[in-house]
Amino acid sequence: MKIAIDVMGGDYAPKEIVEGVEQARDINSDVIYQLFGDRNKINKYLKNNDSIEIHHTEEYISMDDEPTKAIKKKKNSSLVLAAKSVKEGNSDSLFSAGNTGAIMVAGLLIVGRIKGIDRPGLTTTLPVIDNDMGFTMIDCGANADTKLLNIKQYALMGKYYAENVKKIDNPRIGLINNGTESDKGNIQHREMYEMLSEMNSINFIGNIESRDLLNGVTDVAVTDGFTGNAVLKTIEGTALSMMNLIKKEIKSNGMKSKIGALLLKNSFKDVGRKMDYTRYGGALLLGLKAPVVKSHGNSKAKTVKNSLVEIQNIVDSGLTNSINDYFDNDQNKTEK
Amino acid sequence: MKIAIDVMGGDYAPKEIVEGVEQARDINSDVIYQLFGDRNKINKYLKNNDSIEIHHTEEYISMDDEPTKAIKKKKNSSLVLAAKSVKEGNSDSLFSAGNTGAIMVAGLLIVGRIKGIDRPGLTTTLPVIDNDMGFTMIDCGANADTKLLNIKQYALMGKYYAENVKKIDNPRIGLINNGTESDKGNIQHREMYEMLSEMNSINFIGNIESRDLLNGVTDVAVTDGFTGNAVLKTIEGTALSMMNLIKKEIKSNGMKSKIGALLLKNSFKDVGRKMDYTRYGGALLLGLKAPVVKSHGNSKAKTVKNSLVEIQNIVDSGLTNSINDYFDNDQNKTEK
Repeated sequence: MKIAIDVMGGDYAPKEIVEGVEQARDINSDVIYQLFGDRNKINKYLKNNDSIEIHHTEEYISMDDEPTKAIKKKKNSSLVLAAKSVKEGNSDSLFSAGNTGAIMVAGLLIVGRIKGIDRPGLTTTLPVIDNDMGFTMIDCGANADTKLLNIKQYALMGKYYAENVKKIDNPRIGLINNGTESDKGNIQHREMYEMLSEMNSINFIGNIESRDLLNGVTDVAVTDGFTGNAVLKTIEGTALSMMNLIKKEIKSNGMKSKIGALLLKNSFKDVGRKMDYTRYGGALLLGLKAPVVKSHGNSKAKTVKNSLVEIQNIVDSGLTNSINDYFDNDQNKTEK
Repeated sequence: MKIAIDVMGGDYAPKEIVEGVEQARDINSDVIYQLFGDRNKINKYLKNNDSIEIHHTEEYISMDDEPTKAIKKKKNSSLVLAAKSVKEGNSDSLFSAGNTGAIMVAGLLIVGRIKGIDRPGLTTTLPVIDNDMGFTMIDCGANADTKLLNIKQYALMGKYYAENVKKIDNPRIGLINNGTESDKGNIQHREMYEMLSEMNSINFIGNIESRDLLNGVTDVAVTDGFTGNAVLKTIEGTALSMMNLIKKEIKSNGMKSKIGALLLKNSFKDVGRKMDYTRYGGALLLGLKAPVVKSHGNSKAKTVKNSLVEIQNIVDSGLTNSINDYFDNDQNKTEK
């Protein structure tokens, strides 16, 4: 297996990207890690080049670049070259912590969609309080103007993701809506509900509310990209704000509180670990001919390592083939 | 001031509603608290009838009733009679912890909209980590199919709410979107951004992301009712899940953890108090001829008391008149 890695993307690139790659390599050295980026900068941080290939280029796409323009103009950027390597069959997957829009455009225009897929969906696994599996949300923001067809395909791709990668039998698929009853939502979401209800190929459990997501109400939460993005960012923001609030209150409540916090160190660590969804790897752009994974711009080595380990699971799982086979089957083109 | 109270609405009605009313009365006995509901049941819990009027009726609307049908058929229900009392000028405001849909329909059909307002917006104040003012979100779900006109009116009503009730000068108005840049969002949200940018009468600070809400990025967060509802429920769900997770981890980490938790009792209490947004009162249906306030179905006496205190602030603030005057001014009908 070969993974094409955009070493120049991310707030802490290339240092933390290179370190993350080495951590992943130390777990699995059977994979070839293909580093696209500036050889001199990479070598500054690289300790050991076992299982590592360097594909030198000095051009890269910055966080501020306009995505489509950057992909079209910066032909020798690390991201574009890594995506081309996937397209040409020289790599099995693409990873970047860089410019989100540019990664999506590179996935769409260079790696390319699976035949039959209208729009790929950004797929993220988030924590669930009572289990370690988490739940998967699709679409988290690849496509803000979502059509019914997209929702149908998200549900199917989400199902295959849960089955192949997370090994869940007959995964529960829920639609994020503003109430659980079947008649809830705006016009668009009532149509989505109706369509999903009529699909025989998925285990549709109906409408779900965003308040129940972390309680494990579903295995796969299907949502339009606008709502999914808002929900994802609200979970992130609320969890982070609460942790900050707890720290602040502990500081302002004197010595007794500080000793209490010390005694609770392990519990807080467990909470932090549980809420840290980067342990599930980055966000997967699902519906492309090969897995394209992006992690947060602020990713450090550990997150990069987690993403690379997860990419190996995804490639091994045969997920892309499952989706491909489904959409390649003529019968399924009209199937409900 | 007279407040019409639907004593029969809510999971813990009438007991907790009556107790909440008495707590509010003990703070301010200049208000007349008009209890609509079953006299026998009310008297079972009422300790002291100072400043309290009982308007007897045995009919009520349950949580499962279909809202519009219930309001039309149950003419003698506690909610309908309370709303009529407002309409007829015998009460200054309506409070209920009952069936949300029915409260909204009663507000719309019985209390009635301010002339010029297309749809009322459900307005909630939520906590901000670093200040005690919180931020106000409108619409939290009154109207899932939101038009541009509604967003414009939410922005204006939000401004008057922040100015009159929260005494904020020139309040910051932000639009919840999936990125802060001006070109972010789906077609609908890009149109909203453009329209809000052109309004001279508000201090529009641009797009905001839901991840920054609890950090106090804005005074008023304007949003379509579908997204607002999802964001509100995600904040609720994430905060609650985190508190449960912390409790669970403390329990599973043995005696040391339990002692730590004991020492941190005050800090946790402060966190709980800070995150408990019921201290800001319930959700206000804004754009009606008089304030209509609903609190959570699971409200206990303290929440009812907070809502009734907040209603007094709202009525005293002259908010309804401010909105009325604005929309009554011919010039503002075409104003940008």
